[in-house]
Amino acid sequence: MNLCVIPTAQQAQGMNFSGKTAVVIDVLRATSVITTALANGASAVIPVATIEEAKLRYAACDPRQTLRGGERHALKIEGFDLGNSPLEYTKDRVGGKTVILTTTNGTCAINHVKCADGVVLACFRNVEMVAEQIMRLSHHSSRDVAIVCAGTEGRFSMDDGLCAGMLIGSLRQKTEVGMDDLGSLLSRFYAQNKENLRDALSDCFHLKRLVSLGFEDDVRFCLETNGVVIVPVFDGDKFVVR
Amino acid sequence: MNLCVIPTAQQAQGMNFSGKTAVVIDVLRATSVITTALANGASAVIPVATIEEAKLRYAACDPRQTLRGGERHALKIEGFDLGNSPLEYTKDRVGGKTVILTTTNGTCAINHVKCADGVVLACFRNVEMVAEQIMRLSHHSSRDVAIVCAGTEGRFSMDDGLCAGMLIGSLRQKTEVGMDDLGSLLSRFYAQNKENLRDALSDCFHLKRLVSLGFEDDVRFCLETNGVVIVPVFDGDKFVVR
Repeated sequence: MNLCVIPTAQQAQGMNFSGKTAVVIDVLRATSVITTALANGASAVIPVATIEEAKLRYAACDPRQTLRGGERHALKIEGFDLGNSPLEYTKDRVGGKTVILTTTNGTCAINHVKCADGVVLACFRNVEMVAEQIMRLSHHSSRDVAIVCAGTEGRFSMDDGLCAGMLIGSLRQKTEVGMDDLGSLLSRFYAQNKENLRDALSDCFHLKRLVSLGFEDDVRFCLETNGVVIVPVFDGDKFVVR
Repeated sequence: MNLCVIPTAQQAQGMNFSGKTAVVIDVLRATSVITTALANGASAVIPVATIEEAKLRYAACDPRQTLRGGERHALKIEGFDLGNSPLEYTKDRVGGKTVILTTTNGTCAINHVKCADGVVLACFRNVEMVAEQIMRLSHHSSRDVAIVCAGTEGRFSMDDGLCAGMLIGSLRQKTEVGMDDLGSLLSRFYAQNKENLRDALSDCFHLKRLVSLGFEDDVRFCLETNGVVIVPVFDGDKFVVR
């Protein structure tokens, strides 16, 4: 299996992902949110790039079955039902509902990889399941994999990179993986820090910002590994559990 | 001093570097070549993006005082005087001459940062001098620094990243440095591997390719640290030693 890592959503723009399995990672917090929502029984999550698009999409849906979620500048969008904290996406709140989600980086990264032959979402909470899903989607390693780290404001974000490194480590336990240089670097970064992910991210700009905004509980939740057993898979329009 | 690291030349395209000091790193081999040429007495190195541009520029110069150098696919360009091996850029060959240089990634990265308030080139051979020069250009740390890693074929290259990490380490010994996440990661990568740079780069795609093409001596030369005492500085048209 050949694998490359794209450091930011912006760098994924215009790239050709056809023939590849794409994995999008936005640990803090979009892919953690979508994974949690589906694990808690949401029927689907529709990622959209803009607030305008979220509103248009919502207008065409049954409002009793649909929720709008997301953030701008890490905070809930005015008039929306949910923010971007995975802790809000409880069974009570999202069970049986469709969530329309727009975030600053995560949903943009997803938009850029829609042309891939398969799109799945990873976060620390489902890494092991994602590795297994990739093995299935890639027909046991004949298809290439592109990991897109969403990043923050156009910059590489260490939390996404550390999760990419964990995913690569998990894949390497299942098959031989040819990697690009960023993949190798992140794989080592995870291997050297797997005993304490939080310490490894002590300099992470985005993590520190979330903590300063009062999202310490979110950060702790998002850094828990392999707590859920589902993988969000893109069906051409929305993320569902297959 | 605030510092960011751009992982590839492509990502630097269209970015705004005004008000910043930009450092371009293409260890294997463009910035090692330019540093070596100037250290060996070349009067200037003119970086150009295309072969066509190199030919046009050469046509307007005194051929007795001018050399054309560079590579495509790591190999010397037909009709040019020099390739992209720093070992070719000897005192005998380049002393007193102007070199017009075009390479696949390095000169493109340089092109994207020309709008910066100061542009310097770094490689392992002059890191310490570059750190000192940045301190001068940045008026002892009030001006932001952007390190652009040239990369290889649009991808992050570990050799450039390791050199960026070394440069950051050197700057941190002189002043307080605020870094983005990639800067932090590369700074640790260097700190963990400074005793053996070659081992740290054992998975580096571009290094392995150069070795397979017979450029082992180039690789060894380019990984020697702080052997030269000059910094290539851009004067708006060409790199010179100030």
